Amino acid sequence: MSSTAGQVIRCKAAVAWEAGKPLVIEEVEVAPPQAMEVRLKILFTSLCHTDVYFWEAKGQTPLFPRIFGHEAGGIVESVGEGVTDLKPGDHVLPVFTGECKECRHCKSEESNMCDLLRINTDRGVMLNDGKSRFSIRGQPIYHFVGTSTFSEYTVVHVGCVAKINPAAPLDKVCVLSCGISTGLGATLNVAKPKKGSSVAIFGLGAVGLAAAEGARIAGASRIIGVDLNSNRFDEAKKFGVTEFVNPKDHNKPVQEVIAEMTNGGVDRSVECTGSINAMISAFECVHDGWGVAVLVGVPNKDDSFKTHPMNVLNERTLKGTFFGNYKPRSDLPSVVEKYMNKELELEKFITHEVPFSEINKAFEYMLSGAGLRCIIRMGA
Amino acid sequence: MSSTAGQVIRCKAAVAWEAGKPLVIEEVEVAPPQAMEVRLKILFTSLCHTDVYFWEAKGQTPLFPRIFGHEAGGIVESVGEGVTDLKPGDHVLPVFTGECKECRHCKSEESNMCDLLRINTDRGVMLNDGKSRFSIRGQPIYHFVGTSTFSEYTVVHVGCVAKINPAAPLDKVCVLSCGISTGLGATLNVAKPKKGSSVAIFGLGAVGLAAAEGARIAGASRIIGVDLNSNRFDEAKKFGVTEFVNPKDHNKPVQEVIAEMTNGGVDRSVECTGSINAMISAFECVHDGWGVAVLVGVPNKDDSFKTHPMNVLNERTLKGTFFGNYKPRSDLPSVVEKYMNKELELEKFITHEVPFSEINKAFEYMLSGAGLRCIIRMGA
Repeated sequence: MSSTAGQVIRCKAAVAWEAGKPLVIEEVEVAPPQAMEVRLKILFTSLCHTDVYFWEAKGQTPLFPRIFGHEAGGIVESVGEGVTDLKPGDHVLPVFTGECKECRHCKSEESNMCDLLRINTDRGVMLNDGKSRFSIRGQPIYHFVGTSTFSEYTVVHVGCVAKINPAAPLDKVCVLSCGISTGLGATLNVAKPKKGSSVAIFGLGAVGLAAAEGARIAGASRIIGVDLNSNRFDEAKKFGVTEFVNPKDHNKPVQEVIAEMTNGGVDRSVECTGSINAMISAFECVHDGWGVAVLVGVPNKDDSFKTHPMNVLNERTLKGTFFGNYKPRSDLPSVVEKYMNKELELEKFITHEVPFSEINKAFEYMLSGAGLRCIIRMGA
Repeated sequence: MSSTAGQVIRCKAAVAWEAGKPLVIEEVEVAPPQAMEVRLKILFTSLCHTDVYFWEAKGQTPLFPRIFGHEAGGIVESVGEGVTDLKPGDHVLPVFTGECKECRHCKSEESNMCDLLRINTDRGVMLNDGKSRFSIRGQPIYHFVGTSTFSEYTVVHVGCVAKINPAAPLDKVCVLSCGISTGLGATLNVAKPKKGSSVAIFGLGAVGLAAAEGARIAGASRIIGVDLNSNRFDEAKKFGVTEFVNPKDHNKPVQEVIAEMTNGGVDRSVECTGSINAMISAFECVHDGWGVAVLVGVPNKDDSFKTHPMNVLNERTLKGTFFGNYKPRSDLPSVVEKYMNKELELEKFITHEVPFSEINKAFEYMLSGAGLRCIIRMGA
């Protein structure tokens, strides 16, 4: 039992007081975990587009002040009532979506969309009592997707915590909390390309490159990267991308370009941009008879996916995925093992590192499109 | 070797001289099979919507005079050069689509859309020489989808002939040549419902009821039939349909009605109408996380399948199928065995029977919506 168990912890957190304004490192109070909650000491966190999206709060109901952050690695400090499968000292990855192990989704082999702990970006409080565990001078600070990892300590529902191999370096595997697992799982768990097959990846950001990494691991022989920014191709080669198509370079739809390159279409495609046109192209560029297209990118609220139904009838498959179909608690430990046994390369995703005190630099890197992942070292 | 091998055979055929006009039983000449062709003596044939659709020739380029028919059972009379896996006397089902066993589709485990012998409704001649094997008083008569089974003898490419158990009654298993296998395979091979699951079937014609039969065989516990004609429900119960929804009885979209009936959606759906609205409903009525919707019905040329991409992202799957994903030569024999071992019930699909001389009655039954399948006895 740690000496802080049951006590309020005072620590540093990066608080977003207003939409789009730089975070402020503040001393906050973190209440002890309640029933089915755990309090984590965060050692490393990284910045993902979703943090930036909700920090900018364009088109959503803003919820401030708030502590963002959802890709992280840490150590269990203390556990609340009823928590039996985690104990202080365990190495963990907090995850923005959960696994209660009780609902129909958790009991289904096919789904990871837990009814109880599915991502909820509008909720800024804990489930147990509808309140925040963070406060500053008595004022509650909202949580973000149940993780709020831009804090030296945070409280998370036990269902949103994956216990991992304590030998795994948290400054690397922390990126598996969200984007990298999302792309990797989209390919390995959903698209499932066979050895020697062809795969098109739409969008060569971190998620798309993780999808490419999945195709490389699966032994795809052709990995066609599609992006509107041709500068991304060089970086993409490190992730196994063998060919590059910039839709802007062609005066016909990119699905036709890809069909011509591949004698009728690719075996699999993975869409990682969220653009509705890319989604339609990703579907229509797969081969009839066996092609599978997987949608990963989050669309706009008013988008409509449109295609001629014969494209479906001709034995194409369209699938969507959420967090790469990984169940956080059951499956993430094995993804960490893929890194440990050198099957999965994570270093190439990590292009920047900053101390916690300079967390706003991580936002600047992302907003300027520089690099893939910036690791933020806590306690520094 | 039969005494007719290598000779022109004179026999009766039902010739469609003009679009939409009653067929005329004529004496036709059937040329011997050429390389990779077989000549079949047809014993039983049945009428399918596709025959009627192309006989009406609304919206297609009409091709007349023509011999329709593509659901049938018969016996090999003689074989052309190069045919090694069929011999005179073999019991067979001719099929409107083929399996060359050489192309990428035939070599793929996932596809049955043979490059060489895929259905071609515009072609009225044989592949080998681009000519018809049928003539009447010297005038060629066009083939239909490579089968033309409304004739006592017909010539078919060897890749479009499934050799089956000679003990199987051809007056029953002939219906497996097209519609029944299409619906059955859509469920068993593509939707793959688990035991105890829920399945919605859109359209309770012969194909939809065959899809329901597949769900019954798979052990689905709830089979929800959806049709605009409530009179079909009684018949549908025989095929395992447990509940019925007529979209006309509700003032909300049928996908919402089904979601309410099933606590969020069915596990699987199979669309067998060809209506674009039914296709969209069939997709949107499956449960998030694991739902799979399978499209079977053939859409109109100007249709557009539209849905919000979040319906896909929430881990729903949309698939299309052609001939139930069965490879005609490799897989149909085992479907016949399902009937032989009483797993599959075919009798309930057969609601009428007429002698060949009364083939136009079969058209009348179908046009008036009476019954499911009408068997036409040749040589009578």
